[in-house]
Amino acid sequence: MIKEAIYHRPKNNFAYGYDEKTIHIRLRTKKNDIDEVKLIHGDPYDWNGSKWSHERNIMMKSGSDELFDYWFIAVQPPYRRLRYGFELKAKDETMFFGEKGFLSSQPEDDIAFYFCIPFLNKADIFNAPAWVKDTIWYQIFPERFANGDESINPKGTLPWGSAEPTPTNFFGGDFQGIIDRIDYLKDLGITGIYFTPIFKAYSNHKYDTIDYMEIDPQFGDKAAFKRLVETCHAKGIKVMLDAVFNHSGYYLPQFQDVLENGKDSKYKDWFHINEFPIETEPKPNYDTFAFVPTMPKLNTENEEVKGYLLKVASYWIEEFNIDGWRLDVANEIDHSFWREFRKTVKAANPDVYILGEIWHDSMPWLQGDQFDAVMNYPFTSATIDYFAKGTINAEHFSNIINRVIHAYPEHVNAVQFNLLDSHDTPRILTLCNGNKDRVKLLLLFQMSFTGTPCIYYGNEISMSGGADPGCRKCMEWDESKQDKDMYSFVQQLITYRKHNNAFGNSGDFSFIETNNEKNYVVYKKSNANETLLFILNNSAKSIDGEFAFNGTIQSSENFWNADSIEVKNNKIAFALDSYSFAILQINEKK
Amino acid sequence: MIKEAIYHRPKNNFAYGYDEKTIHIRLRTKKNDIDEVKLIHGDPYDWNGSKWSHERNIMMKSGSDELFDYWFIAVQPPYRRLRYGFELKAKDETMFFGEKGFLSSQPEDDIAFYFCIPFLNKADIFNAPAWVKDTIWYQIFPERFANGDESINPKGTLPWGSAEPTPTNFFGGDFQGIIDRIDYLKDLGITGIYFTPIFKAYSNHKYDTIDYMEIDPQFGDKAAFKRLVETCHAKGIKVMLDAVFNHSGYYLPQFQDVLENGKDSKYKDWFHINEFPIETEPKPNYDTFAFVPTMPKLNTENEEVKGYLLKVASYWIEEFNIDGWRLDVANEIDHSFWREFRKTVKAANPDVYILGEIWHDSMPWLQGDQFDAVMNYPFTSATIDYFAKGTINAEHFSNIINRVIHAYPEHVNAVQFNLLDSHDTPRILTLCNGNKDRVKLLLLFQMSFTGTPCIYYGNEISMSGGADPGCRKCMEWDESKQDKDMYSFVQQLITYRKHNNAFGNSGDFSFIETNNEKNYVVYKKSNANETLLFILNNSAKSIDGEFAFNGTIQSSENFWNADSIEVKNNKIAFALDSYSFAILQINEKK
Repeated sequence: MIKEAIYHRPKNNFAYGYDEKTIHIRLRTKKNDIDEVKLIHGDPYDWNGSKWSHERNIMMKSGSDELFDYWFIAVQPPYRRLRYGFELKAKDETMFFGEKGFLSSQPEDDIAFYFCIPFLNKADIFNAPAWVKDTIWYQIFPERFANGDESINPKGTLPWGSAEPTPTNFFGGDFQGIIDRIDYLKDLGITGIYFTPIFKAYSNHKYDTIDYMEIDPQFGDKAAFKRLVETCHAKGIKVMLDAVFNHSGYYLPQFQDVLENGKDSKYKDWFHINEFPIETEPKPNYDTFAFVPTMPKLNTENEEVKGYLLKVASYWIEEFNIDGWRLDVANEIDHSFWREFRKTVKAANPDVYILGEIWHDSMPWLQGDQFDAVMNYPFTSATIDYFAKGTINAEHFSNIINRVIHAYPEHVNAVQFNLLDSHDTPRILTLCNGNKDRVKLLLLFQMSFTGTPCIYYGNEISMSGGADPGCRKCMEWDESKQDKDMYSFVQQLITYRKHNNAFGNSGDFSFIETNNEKNYVVYKKSNANETLLFILNNSAKSIDGEFAFNGTIQSSENFWNADSIEVKNNKIAFALDSYSFAILQINEKK
Repeated sequence: MIKEAIYHRPKNNFAYGYDEKTIHIRLRTKKNDIDEVKLIHGDPYDWNGSKWSHERNIMMKSGSDELFDYWFIAVQPPYRRLRYGFELKAKDETMFFGEKGFLSSQPEDDIAFYFCIPFLNKADIFNAPAWVKDTIWYQIFPERFANGDESINPKGTLPWGSAEPTPTNFFGGDFQGIIDRIDYLKDLGITGIYFTPIFKAYSNHKYDTIDYMEIDPQFGDKAAFKRLVETCHAKGIKVMLDAVFNHSGYYLPQFQDVLENGKDSKYKDWFHINEFPIETEPKPNYDTFAFVPTMPKLNTENEEVKGYLLKVASYWIEEFNIDGWRLDVANEIDHSFWREFRKTVKAANPDVYILGEIWHDSMPWLQGDQFDAVMNYPFTSATIDYFAKGTINAEHFSNIINRVIHAYPEHVNAVQFNLLDSHDTPRILTLCNGNKDRVKLLLLFQMSFTGTPCIYYGNEISMSGGADPGCRKCMEWDESKQDKDMYSFVQQLITYRKHNNAFGNSGDFSFIETNNEKNYVVYKKSNANETLLFILNNSAKSIDGEFAFNGTIQSSENFWNADSIEVKNNKIAFALDSYSFAILQINEKK
């Protein structure tokens, strides 16, 4: 037994309150090192004389990555207090693991040995809005979706789609354009739109805010925005806005005041000015986003700034009824600000979704006191590397995905924002070198995975585009240039996700088989009612294969493309064309 | 290289903002497995073309426990943003470790591989009051310290010290008694008093509060308490009160109202009543502390309860100028409450110390948003097991102490509340079976260790006593029965701690030698100016020994009892009587 590999620490992804009654416990051990893990658990105050009263239950292996196995169990302590430890068996060896380390015999008279979830307080339980886990997102870059009101075109607006996008050109996309096209989105099936920034700003991307309380006039006015939200809501579509609170734009009046009045400006503490006079060369002598002089970092610890931004946060909820805030560069703002932000937002409407842009491990923001989810870039990069770029093999892919799953609590995973591309990255069709079959595998995996998928506008009709600004082309509205087949495919995925429980978030995800040689993966989505098996051939060749199903198959049926699959007892044989997939529905004997 | 043993995760004891400019990074590896660790670090936005700009620095080994080595480095990122990873060398193998795992070559074009402290925001940095780390605490159980006003004796008060303490008897200790004896405490040298509860309650221990806004009349009135605080402050002594917020007493009027009016009580949501009518047998059908029916758990998520308790928190600061709150059963109250508590307390006075009673791993409460410290029971149990009970050997002791040190950030360690005993445990003299030499070793270790030591009243004059109620005897004021030698010893320790930097918190602690056979430990406290070597013989025999000092000794002198120590080059030879110690001051060539 490699004791050094065994890891557990409470109050994060390894042990957390799942709901008001349930605690989830995970343990990490060296891969293939431990045969059985039991959870030893009881109430800290429940004693029988000098002996602690406790029980033990077998934990299930919930997945593995390159180095580790992960074990899982859910328990419901009757008094909401839990002391617990682990009994580990490897060959002939049995060890007991608790907060104080390892022992070869179990201490029954000293609960200080054990781990502890002292009390399951409701206020501390992570609790994202219930609607989020069933949402299918669609990302709109407002300048490029549709121009519905030419009268508000910014100066120099080019005819729609008449040129390649550049960092500075304008095509006049606006709110009326989106309202006009709402039935297109409704028909596709999406149920939430994430808008990149819409507030008054200088650039075409609007990440350089001038006024957080005003709509940029090129998109319309507040009345138009209200109409847009109402139109979306009438069609069952949620609206999420982009909150760029880490930094303002250069033309924010408060920053202009500092530029003008230097240390005499009443706004000098709104930013982090390291010395006066302000210089921008060679590097700005004030804190900025990255080293971009036009994006001065806001001092979110300053009470006035905090008050202003929190007012912004509640204003757009209270006055316009928006459903979500996506937080730009969320990781560089203090946790303290985000805690107040959450309180403000949830007081305005507890059903608003709070989504942080964080590219790395985000557990410190996902404890229930700050965000509801983060943009799931570790999912993105693994999925792109495997299905689009082919730079990792099937096993490596499954290792990363299993690590992604075990990096956060289950209820966090269910509302994670799973994107494949965005206004910041090349489009998936371009990443797949134009191979639409690979795009379909990407989309299938995204749509059947745990979390909430997001489609970047135009991917559903096979728009292409490289890195920014290439990915920000005008939406293609010429139907003859739209890929109808891809549209139907996406529509079908959305329908399945909406109407088949196991396809969506109420199905538990697990890998069944990964094959490096033939380059395919098999995974299962299942719940109490339904089991779906997904077989994805990620190779350029036609393949056939066979794998065992761990369970008893009573019957099976073709869910999608599964006509070339044969089920014999618990063996499943399949044949698949290059970059194709099949989904089998299984009725298990339970 | 055992990759599975290597652990790091940011934003806890492994990586944290130490001050506004400095980030501390720790890494855990399998014991004796890795020869060298370097930190690779840079600003995430600092690129030279497609190559990330970064530097690397050697980390130092900061300690080891049974299974692991710990490595440490402090860095000051110029823009307060840090991406970092580790270069590990073991024999011929070099590996790179980052958030995404292990690679054999260093990725220089992909910072997603690395760990991240996104921005060092001041608001998130743990920040305990500056005075705490220099404080020497003294715990008073007010009913048993001194009776200075017989006119307020509770009914049935026994003559001082005339009987053994029982769970229900009273001896009339009060505030006037403490005021009368303040010079005794001043003379001893202590600089802070932790009082167990003083609010109106039924029992002699007062943990069953009836009114959090009133002083228990057996101790005096509010004027007397004000006099007590002022007297303490005039003598340079801080005052910390006990906040029993997890549960109230049975006689809290609000709980009495619920008992009386059941579900019609306007206070029914002040508690967690699982069903009406309320029953106490066989187990209470409302949540309680443990299963004690007379201690109903308060519903700290209820806005009224929260408002009431937060008012209590600020009232005693604002009106009486207290310096600290010790939080009873702190771990069973929601984090959300404690975050508001901290804001309320620090708004009333940012210099108030917040100390949680938590017996287990407390990192989730010590992130800067909740407590300043916890009662350091892992320190207590290791120290008692080694020096008092002799149930663990020298190496085991050093392993636990090293684990304790690495369990929290450095600035948390400096303000931890290091107790050896309390009103909840047997006294140290009793734990040492009356052996005063062992008591002295315990006290020496406590007083020279990182954190803030606390003396339980009467230990300084060798009072004995078993578990509660035995440990709650009346303070011995008959000078002929006080142990003057022990008093002088404690006084000397306090003087050293106050006047020798390295002896106290500005000295870094590390073990130099642990010897199981002869049962002694050697540790060092050192800073830029001073190095002290402590040699503690924890055996019943006289011993001699020799060990090497890793550094160059220029000269050395007897700091305390070190006359039987010989220094030759870098070898130190010593001879010590049973259960005795020596301290050597070393002038190092640096």
